[in-house]
Amino acid sequence: MGGTGSIERNIKSKKVVEKLFVIKIGGNVIDDDASLQSFLQIFSSIKAKKILIHGGGKVATKIGDKLGIESKYVNGRRITDEATIDLVTMVYGGLVNKKVVAKLQSLNCNAIGLTGADANIIPAVKRPVKDIDYGFVGDVEASKIGASTLQILLDNGMMPIIAPLTHDSHGQMLNTNADTVASSLAVSLSKSYDVRLIYCFEKKGVLENVNDDDSVITLITKEKYKQLTDDKKLFDGIIPKIDNAFDAINSGVKEVLIGDAKDLIQNVTDNTKGTLIK
Amino acid sequence: MGGTGSIERNIKSKKVVEKLFVIKIGGNVIDDDASLQSFLQIFSSIKAKKILIHGGGKVATKIGDKLGIESKYVNGRRITDEATIDLVTMVYGGLVNKKVVAKLQSLNCNAIGLTGADANIIPAVKRPVKDIDYGFVGDVEASKIGASTLQILLDNGMMPIIAPLTHDSHGQMLNTNADTVASSLAVSLSKSYDVRLIYCFEKKGVLENVNDDDSVITLITKEKYKQLTDDKKLFDGIIPKIDNAFDAINSGVKEVLIGDAKDLIQNVTDNTKGTLIK
Repeated sequence: MGGTGSIERNIKSKKVVEKLFVIKIGGNVIDDDASLQSFLQIFSSIKAKKILIHGGGKVATKIGDKLGIESKYVNGRRITDEATIDLVTMVYGGLVNKKVVAKLQSLNCNAIGLTGADANIIPAVKRPVKDIDYGFVGDVEASKIGASTLQILLDNGMMPIIAPLTHDSHGQMLNTNADTVASSLAVSLSKSYDVRLIYCFEKKGVLENVNDDDSVITLITKEKYKQLTDDKKLFDGIIPKIDNAFDAINSGVKEVLIGDAKDLIQNVTDNTKGTLIK
Repeated sequence: MGGTGSIERNIKSKKVVEKLFVIKIGGNVIDDDASLQSFLQIFSSIKAKKILIHGGGKVATKIGDKLGIESKYVNGRRITDEATIDLVTMVYGGLVNKKVVAKLQSLNCNAIGLTGADANIIPAVKRPVKDIDYGFVGDVEASKIGASTLQILLDNGMMPIIAPLTHDSHGQMLNTNADTVASSLAVSLSKSYDVRLIYCFEKKGVLENVNDDDSVITLITKEKYKQLTDDKKLFDGIIPKIDNAFDAINSGVKEVLIGDAKDLIQNVTDNTKGTLIK
């Protein structure tokens, strides 16, 4: 009898940390109605707490073209001028975000669509002008992220759906890379949750052989990563993604998964199909 | 000593109902940067709990013109076709809503921008086609309004800023008149709060003499209203607004105020400048 009591005490004294999935989808999912619908069906079926960060897809460029808003690039980097920040606020924060929210509501997922300005969840600083003036681009103020606000929403059964927009706390919306928004939120929320950060992209995972879509490396640890880079096994494009994943892990995120949106149902289990980085 | 105890018990047993302001602004405030800024300054200074519902202003028509989206009317009523619902979702739910939210954040007001789809706060039914097909227009499902969700946000220091958009719970956004959104929310929240519903419009209040902007009728009771209509003192345009105000009051709203956005600072006190209806 005494034994049972001490087990109970042990269970109670052990801090139970809840799981949270922070999931990022890109333009390839947003742009295709069928892909989006099937992704959202899987997303809504996930029983654990979850946050979705979505990119904008091609619709911003299409609407921008019609409005005569030119896409400007300097050294291959897009510049966000005044017309462009209005455009992306409209398209990402309005059209795309509410389309996703309304669809999730129809799937009985209590989605709440937000930008970084809403409830001050992602304050940012307009990127300082050095060689290039990126315009209205925001660098996230990591220490000021409203993790406790997101926790209030999550604890009350709301699933935040976040457009990649931030604000400068002086009344200006800013454009921020969706991958960065996802990793910043994941890091900030890892103080309260066991966070798995999931990047949905156009491949099943990190490939051992770039020409073979089924050659997914299912687990990358720090040691494995060193070995893969020493052996020059990885294609250049994936290296920054893995570096960013380890940055997030070093800052508290439990694990990062890179995989196909279609495989999300497996990728939220222990039996992942994509590449788990930890 | 016993006396003090019973006073304490009396205070505790008396239900203290908190004040809530549900404030609607129209296009005239949204369209003019200086008016909007000064309105938001006053709004942010209100210490009580508050919700803002905003119309869209002329910017939707301007952007629609550029995108080649024609405004369609039947018998003077605007029709919301597929292109138009996307347009207003973008402009009201994205551009205008986030502009207001970012400005309020800069004024230390913890605004959270929402449409009726977000957290399922305003479910609606697509208006049935009778003589006219209004398209994607939503009639609010009053009994399903998410008052408890709004209360959670308010109790946690967030001020909901609501675009006049609803959803049909099957994945479709719908366009709903901002006055109707405001009164529906006010009625639903009146179960938990002492609600003053404030309609900001382009005059100081209901005028005794339509040509004299200073002839504001400061108080309209049911008796006074009967007398004013019997005496044919009211101009036609204001009668539906007053009828709607009494509908809200009959459904639980404590009082309705009609006044100029510029006078909001007085209109949230007991010493109102506009027309108080109760």
